[in-house]
Amino acid sequence: MSSPTSGTLADGRDILFFALPGHTPTPVPDRRPLPPRDTQPSELRFDRTTGQWVIIAAQRQDRTYKPPAEACPLCPGPSGLTSEVPAADYDVVVFENRFPSLAGEGAGITTPPDGAEFVSEFVSKPGIGRCEVICFSADHTGSFADLPAEHARLVVHAWRHRTADLLARPGIEQVFCFENRGEEIGVTLAHPHGQIYGYPYLTPRTAAMLVQARDHRIAHGTNLFADLLADELADGARIVARTETFTAFVPFAARWPVEVHLYPNRRVHNLTELTDAELDDFAVIYRDLLSRFDRLYDAALPYMAALHQYRDNGDQADGYFHVELMSIKRSATKLKYLAASESAMDAFIADVTPESVAARLRAL
Amino acid sequence: MSSPTSGTLADGRDILFFALPGHTPTPVPDRRPLPPRDTQPSELRFDRTTGQWVIIAAQRQDRTYKPPAEACPLCPGPSGLTSEVPAADYDVVVFENRFPSLAGEGAGITTPPDGAEFVSEFVSKPGIGRCEVICFSADHTGSFADLPAEHARLVVHAWRHRTADLLARPGIEQVFCFENRGEEIGVTLAHPHGQIYGYPYLTPRTAAMLVQARDHRIAHGTNLFADLLADELADGARIVARTETFTAFVPFAARWPVEVHLYPNRRVHNLTELTDAELDDFAVIYRDLLSRFDRLYDAALPYMAALHQYRDNGDQADGYFHVELMSIKRSATKLKYLAASESAMDAFIADVTPESVAARLRAL
Repeated sequence: MSSPTSGTLADGRDILFFALPGHTPTPVPDRRPLPPRDTQPSELRFDRTTGQWVIIAAQRQDRTYKPPAEACPLCPGPSGLTSEVPAADYDVVVFENRFPSLAGEGAGITTPPDGAEFVSEFVSKPGIGRCEVICFSADHTGSFADLPAEHARLVVHAWRHRTADLLARPGIEQVFCFENRGEEIGVTLAHPHGQIYGYPYLTPRTAAMLVQARDHRIAHGTNLFADLLADELADGARIVARTETFTAFVPFAARWPVEVHLYPNRRVHNLTELTDAELDDFAVIYRDLLSRFDRLYDAALPYMAALHQYRDNGDQADGYFHVELMSIKRSATKLKYLAASESAMDAFIADVTPESVAARLRAL
Repeated sequence: MSSPTSGTLADGRDILFFALPGHTPTPVPDRRPLPPRDTQPSELRFDRTTGQWVIIAAQRQDRTYKPPAEACPLCPGPSGLTSEVPAADYDVVVFENRFPSLAGEGAGITTPPDGAEFVSEFVSKPGIGRCEVICFSADHTGSFADLPAEHARLVVHAWRHRTADLLARPGIEQVFCFENRGEEIGVTLAHPHGQIYGYPYLTPRTAAMLVQARDHRIAHGTNLFADLLADELADGARIVARTETFTAFVPFAARWPVEVHLYPNRRVHNLTELTDAELDDFAVIYRDLLSRFDRLYDAALPYMAALHQYRDNGDQADGYFHVELMSIKRSATKLKYLAASESAMDAFIADVTPESVAARLRAL
């Protein structure tokens, strides 16, 4: 697919237009009187009791909150005065978040901090990294599941492009493409969009998974995730969908009322290692899964989509690219809340069996 | 304080009445035609990708959900036909949850499972343990913060009693007293109450904290939590309240919009090691903190209260009893949602500085 057309917003942020074949982006100047960007909007603080970094991004409290549709900052803005996307139209667009949790460049950050960094008992670092917004479509009322096939493929192309670009930037340790969809999980902009984070540290859950994978390799000489995929296929009870190149299943120990993991059948570390044919297939099965989600109940399902990507070297070499899709909806009318057992103790309690959820999703 | 009066509900569940000085519980027979209990209502499944147990408790989907006040199952039921508490009145009552996530006795469960238990790639165990409900007061419209001092002290007495009792039961590894308060975090019964879980395994967050404490002891020869408390006192910027025996502070790397940790000034492992005078003080400062929470905004604050307790031996010996109080309310009108960064990656992003939250809570 073609390279994106790049531009700059009024306050200096990057914007990239990705176009369908035959389309040519026609951005206009961003003429909004935006205040200058805060060059270092956040701080990482190390929690000694858990061994984890926490991002303190205190200036984001005033970020855009549920604007009316006519003031949507993600709809095209042909005048260059009303929107984050100064253009009469677009297919897929990516730009730096105006209210980022992470920004700027620097050295990557280890966990735990280097011993020399414990100059005080309270260790903090600048919150470097990158936060991008990706608009899936100019149609304010659409969704990923509703995108035409070619358009969904363009989003995958944009994710791959951003992954390659961000992984090459100094200080970025991990690239996380994700979508939060639905007011029930706190989404404040209804326009179909996702986000892309370049974290300067390995996130705690990724780090925990890589420890498991390393221990598994040492004990068995094989890849944990590849073995797990083979085991799920052999068992079969939790498989939701399978193609030549991808497999989707509800994990044996699912934590969420609706949870599906999507693995490529061939192990890769991230989107940049997939072939064009595999990326084509990925767009198809990913959209199929989201469309099954929306058919579970009468209303669109609130969900989180998390692309777990890894570097192909070092601590991350045992990783296996996969997507984890999760919903908090535990019935047509009830939500699963993460209360004290989950939030304070990380002890998850699931209200449904993974096998029953897989059977329902398979049948849709 | 006096010992509780014990009884049995219609389906065989235990119930314990704790009474204020001068009060004598007068339970009546529970005459409800309850179905027999499911002796093993749940399953623990081991997630090989994270190294954590997940509780699958599929029969809880039909648990009581937001009943009208006149049908509250936690209000006193003098007829023995309408309530979980068959009595004309009560002060504090504890009973086994009718819809438990964990139940029954057995051997404790290690993490990871013992190698011999990997008979298949998918390891599961019976969800043994214990789930109790604790009603703080017979007053349906009250709250912990509103309890008279003597009554709050009785709740603390009950927590201590249940901690000692459950720690002595076979297969229970960890006793967790907690309160979820507010519909915003999914509470389905408005009556002021908490819960007490006896987990058969060490919960993931506790295990992670104990690894940090062990490493700290090996590196420095001191207790991590005691050092952290001393450091917070020396810094001072995040202290909320302090007495002879207890200190409350917003942690340096707070993950939640409102988060306060309450430590005894003397290290103990759990409530059973506190003296009567310390328990008196605990009831006072704990209630004071919850009352500050309710004065933060015009409405009662939704919160989670988590009592972190440890055994005094083995892997848990480095523990330090403390309470972690957390709220998802990030402003008078907005909630903090745990979306993909937090839920999928455990990468927490806080919208406020811990110092500003501490200053607000101190001033109230």
